[in-house]
Amino acid sequence: MLIVMKMGASDEEVRGVLARLKEANLEGHLSPGEERVVIGAVGVIIDPDIRAQMSRMSGVEDVIAISRPYKLTGREFQEADTVIEVGGVKIGDGHMVVMAGPCSIENEDHMVSTAKAVKASGAQILRGGAFKPRTSPYAFRGLGEEGLQHLATAREETGLPVITEVMDSRDVELVARYADILQIGTRNMQNFMLLDEVGMAHKPVMLKRGLSATIDEWLLAAEYIMAKGNRDVILCERGIRTYETATRNTLDLSAIPVVKRLSHLPIISDPAHGTGHWYLVEPMARASMAVGADGLMIEVHPNPDHALSDGGQSLTLENFDSMMRSLEKIGEAVGNPLAPQPQLVTAD
Amino acid sequence: MLIVMKMGASDEEVRGVLARLKEANLEGHLSPGEERVVIGAVGVIIDPDIRAQMSRMSGVEDVIAISRPYKLTGREFQEADTVIEVGGVKIGDGHMVVMAGPCSIENEDHMVSTAKAVKASGAQILRGGAFKPRTSPYAFRGLGEEGLQHLATAREETGLPVITEVMDSRDVELVARYADILQIGTRNMQNFMLLDEVGMAHKPVMLKRGLSATIDEWLLAAEYIMAKGNRDVILCERGIRTYETATRNTLDLSAIPVVKRLSHLPIISDPAHGTGHWYLVEPMARASMAVGADGLMIEVHPNPDHALSDGGQSLTLENFDSMMRSLEKIGEAVGNPLAPQPQLVTAD
Amino acid sequence: MLIVMKMGASDEEVRGVLARLKEANLEGHLSPGEERVVIGAVGVIIDPDIRAQMSRMSGVEDVIAISRPYKLTGREFQEADTVIEVGGVKIGDGHMVVMAGPCSIENEDHMVSTAKAVKASGAQILRGGAFKPRTSPYAFRGLGEEGLQHLATAREETGLPVITEVMDSRDVELVARYADILQIGTRNMQNFMLLDEVGMAHKPVMLKRGLSATIDEWLLAAEYIMAKGNRDVILCERGIRTYETATRNTLDLSAIPVVKRLSHLPIISDPAHGTGHWYLVEPMARASMAVGADGLMIEVHPNPDHALSDGGQSLTLENFDSMMRSLEKIGEAVGNPLAPQPQLVTAD
Amino acid sequence: MLIVMKMGASDEEVRGVLARLKEANLEGHLSPGEERVVIGAVGVIIDPDIRAQMSRMSGVEDVIAISRPYKLTGREFQEADTVIEVGGVKIGDGHMVVMAGPCSIENEDHMVSTAKAVKASGAQILRGGAFKPRTSPYAFRGLGEEGLQHLATAREETGLPVITEVMDSRDVELVARYADILQIGTRNMQNFMLLDEVGMAHKPVMLKRGLSATIDEWLLAAEYIMAKGNRDVILCERGIRTYETATRNTLDLSAIPVVKRLSHLPIISDPAHGTGHWYLVEPMARASMAVGADGLMIEVHPNPDHALSDGGQSLTLENFDSMMRSLEKIGEAVGNPLAPQPQLVTAD
Repeated sequence: MLIVMKMGASDEEVRGVLARLKEANLEGHLSPGEERVVIGAVGVIIDPDIRAQMSRMSGVEDVIAISRPYKLTGREFQEADTVIEVGGVKIGDGHMVVMAGPCSIENEDHMVSTAKAVKASGAQILRGGAFKPRTSPYAFRGLGEEGLQHLATAREETGLPVITEVMDSRDVELVARYADILQIGTRNMQNFMLLDEVGMAHKPVMLKRGLSATIDEWLLAAEYIMAKGNRDVILCERGIRTYETATRNTLDLSAIPVVKRLSHLPIISDPAHGTGHWYLVEPMARASMAVGADGLMIEVHPNPDHALSDGGQSLTLENFDSMMRSLEKIGEAVGNPLAPQPQLVTAD
Repeated sequence: MLIVMKMGASDEEVRGVLARLKEANLEGHLSPGEERVVIGAVGVIIDPDIRAQMSRMSGVEDVIAISRPYKLTGREFQEADTVIEVGGVKIGDGHMVVMAGPCSIENEDHMVSTAKAVKASGAQILRGGAFKPRTSPYAFRGLGEEGLQHLATAREETGLPVITEVMDSRDVELVARYADILQIGTRNMQNFMLLDEVGMAHKPVMLKRGLSATIDEWLLAAEYIMAKGNRDVILCERGIRTYETATRNTLDLSAIPVVKRLSHLPIISDPAHGTGHWYLVEPMARASMAVGADGLMIEVHPNPDHALSDGGQSLTLENFDSMMRSLEKIGEAVGNPLAPQPQLVTAD
Repeated sequence: MLIVMKMGASDEEVRGVLARLKEANLEGHLSPGEERVVIGAVGVIIDPDIRAQMSRMSGVEDVIAISRPYKLTGREFQEADTVIEVGGVKIGDGHMVVMAGPCSIENEDHMVSTAKAVKASGAQILRGGAFKPRTSPYAFRGLGEEGLQHLATAREETGLPVITEVMDSRDVELVARYADILQIGTRNMQNFMLLDEVGMAHKPVMLKRGLSATIDEWLLAAEYIMAKGNRDVILCERGIRTYETATRNTLDLSAIPVVKRLSHLPIISDPAHGTGHWYLVEPMARASMAVGADGLMIEVHPNPDHALSDGGQSLTLENFDSMMRSLEKIGEAVGNPLAPQPQLVTAD
Repeated sequence: MLIVMKMGASDEEVRGVLARLKEANLEGHLSPGEERVVIGAVGVIIDPDIRAQMSRMSGVEDVIAISRPYKLTGREFQEADTVIEVGGVKIGDGHMVVMAGPCSIENEDHMVSTAKAVKASGAQILRGGAFKPRTSPYAFRGLGEEGLQHLATAREETGLPVITEVMDSRDVELVARYADILQIGTRNMQNFMLLDEVGMAHKPVMLKRGLSATIDEWLLAAEYIMAKGNRDVILCERGIRTYETATRNTLDLSAIPVVKRLSHLPIISDPAHGTGHWYLVEPMARASMAVGADGLMIEVHPNPDHALSDGGQSLTLENFDSMMRSLEKIGEAVGNPLAPQPQLVTAD
């Protein structure tokens, strides 16, 4: 932390800052400049509120953080990439993992048949929403536990691990009973009670970036989960809110290499929510592969024009298969090949 | 809802759209143009997912909503302004209500002495945080129920009703036992389970605008609460996220007259969170009064340079008093005078 | 400028940075921390490119500027407010100046009759566009020099000084022949050749904030004008681009007190472009007055539903008069009263 | 254009709108709904100001455009992709063209040696700035005509066509004398006088997206150039301004497939300005290739830590060569191979 003094700050003001630092168990080092004094603060743990407090002191112009605000999520804490293994699939080991399925689970048949189709096309993980965050209270909000059961059935039939969203701290236990990966949606990225709760669950968590979250805020949200003991966190870039209206959001692909530099956690891309239009899913999936994403989250629906949610951005089964063929072809060239599918172990 | 067909869409495609509308119990009216056909859809209730579905049909260029997506919160549903009465204070009746107090409740003495001071300066409602949403897991997260008790003590001593934040659906009952108004923070504006829960509580709810929520999304979040039966919703503009870094957020004062045109709900302004700097609080509070806000949310701390949260944007007791004197003076001129304080009824 | 070294940067890397600073005539001061070394650079003039260059050196984590990038526009250069006098009107002396008139000048009669009406309502300065920047090449782009002549006629008839936009470096001389204040529009805020040119003109310049300009970039654009010798610069906040679509832009009123803290230049507000809707002009004008703006830019048209540009956000003559009555009443209370009108001197 | 009437609009108000449409030579078609009347307007040419005017009429709730605002740039005007040939290089024919060179031209030797190096690595076009738009008036603003001469020398020595920026309408003729492609920078995207001027030049124009331009505004800026007769327009996505501060801008790669759907013009990507960090250039260049960009604009400098501009985001010669080897390898797989280099024709 650096405290930049105002031009012409008095010696007394400088002494005040040094005393305040001492009070917080920090040591202040003066770095006198021609125009103004800068004080460097050195110490073990820096309380995030100290910065705001110091900014209120007499003679202080600005307070600048120079350490990253997170620890467990950072490369400085762990240099090697985190690899998460779930149901025979590895996430973060240099292969691209495709999580595919319907936005909402509509009924058992719909879930199982979609699951079989995406498996046939090469997906490694199944997705499907049972609890759906919807902007309007009048929209379809999901089947709840019944949906989770259909998801479990689809897992049984295909052997693919499943991921599904949990929206409420009270439901973490229930969802964790069915799901292999717990998904935290974009609107809940800073639902800190929910983060605490999944931090105590024994399942990997996929944390979507908030609609207008900075990368630092996103990594701090991951830090909440890790600080509770759960080290298996996957990040998911899903588009940020910008002024552009041609797309629903702006998929920030540069976030992927930025996160990879700052953090050891795996990061995947969600091109459908990131753009809002089905025709952009394949090109942005290819770009995600080329930029080095560890995986993709793709919405697939047999009849998008009857989908109970997000019909506008879902791929048909045919679109999905064609996209997978294209990804398969380019994966080797870009150095990010599709991951192998898990084997379906059948009892006999 | 209007369905705009592509240039050169075939008759068959147009018939397909009409048939799909019929399936959804909507009637389609053709409005033939020179360049392209537009189909107007008329019917009782329009499922929000229909738009996405229709956008996937062959020959469809675009689908445009023409009705507002909310009902209970809209002026078309209720023309007269909603006035909420809480502890002898009216919100939304043409006076400006000031909610003041510390960001976080730090201890009983701190809460009570701050409460007395803000009352002496003219505040009508006390604020104080017991559950604090913090970006970093390592920051002070509030005293929890102990804080609520201090808040209740401060109410007893001053006679002012109290507002405090609830962050988790499991805590609604607890917080409602102590608070007169339940606050939903910006990060929880789309925590739909929590909205459902406060919609069933018997206390007024103040709903802060999400950091990057559109006005429509904000009113739909209010709709969640109202749809569960709670009609006492207060909106709070608290700054939106923009590219500008000179302020923490950009306080969108134009949202106040926009919301007043669309909705009957009262709306207040939070100039401290909206800007992030204490020196901007007074000018933006004055501007909020001039633009017609129904109230203000103000953070006050006796020693901001030791505040456990948001020290950088809190007013000192002296700043607050001076701001209130200034508001008092201009309230009549701008037609938005400060509301009277509630009377402290002492048992005898 | 502070150079933050990476954790574990070698002594050699530190020496490299110190040597590079010396090459640029800067002196480096080491501030050793527990985690990482920080080097403060001290010296007379800091080339803005040095930061980018230093960021590329081995062992460097980050380079942080601690001085403001502008000089002439800053309070550190000139403490007292700049007051600009034009045609008997003072801008920046604690009164609010209203610049009013049509968006585009449509013909002489239209300009003169609107001018007389806004004068009768209390405006101090006339506005009217002869060169119009339009998003579409197929929209009305203004009357050019003919429009300037109508503006001059309106000035003669009313005695009010006039402001009009100049869009091209080749037109500065022409426009300066007619106008009392040269306006640089939002799209040209970083048209640096045009800034150079008006910096050499002998007329005050009103510089609108760019659609997505930070306050620092805006002050640097003003610095371009001042660096060429023209000290009479007025800033104009006119709304920034955000994700919100209920308004055309988001009028950033907090920019006004922020700029007043950083700079001595007068700053006015343009609530019509800032919001895009006529019904928001009066409330946001009142808020601009309350926040301390030095003036207002208001579009007025006798028949907005036939206006050749910006009909949606123009006030009618009646709306304008009613707004002025309201501002007149509240000016004293908020400490920012309307400025007196200039006297029409008639030859006899 | 659709005019949506308010709920309960009177018959007289509806007749008023129909009459106003007639005045503008448009025919109105009523589409009566249960809740409100919608009027479709049909006619040949729609003046962009009509929408704003109609929005002011009594009884009107909203006015919605349903046609695209541009023509010449749109696919509806020309279905086949535009292919531009310059100095033996084709842009837009399904190959990716790399434009490389220094941000600023610093001296002849620097320009020529960089040119030879990028040619050796496979670039097809040379870039180099002689007129530099700089945020600060105190930064290096380029060598002007001398720089253009060095660029011409570099072209002679390598046989590669050259692109350079023109910033002022007065310089178009000068720059066109030296350059093969005229570049319009992001800050000048809506410098309409400059667009007119390059619209009359006989050289292809590369138009960068404005810092916060929507895709529609960008295509309308291209329309300005085309409307003056110049059909050879290349678009360049270079990052948009968002709230994220980890990158300088957010490179909007989804804009590339969106533009390709709406327009027949070629579109290239500028990953250095789009992100502001050299280490993001290669991954985002790969993603640009995968998403289908027609080309790349890359800044290369032999010594970025001494570059006179944009040192932080320039590739070294080694970085550039390594990036080109990687692109070469993946071009075929993603279906967007590098374009062949032009042949250097030597007189003998």
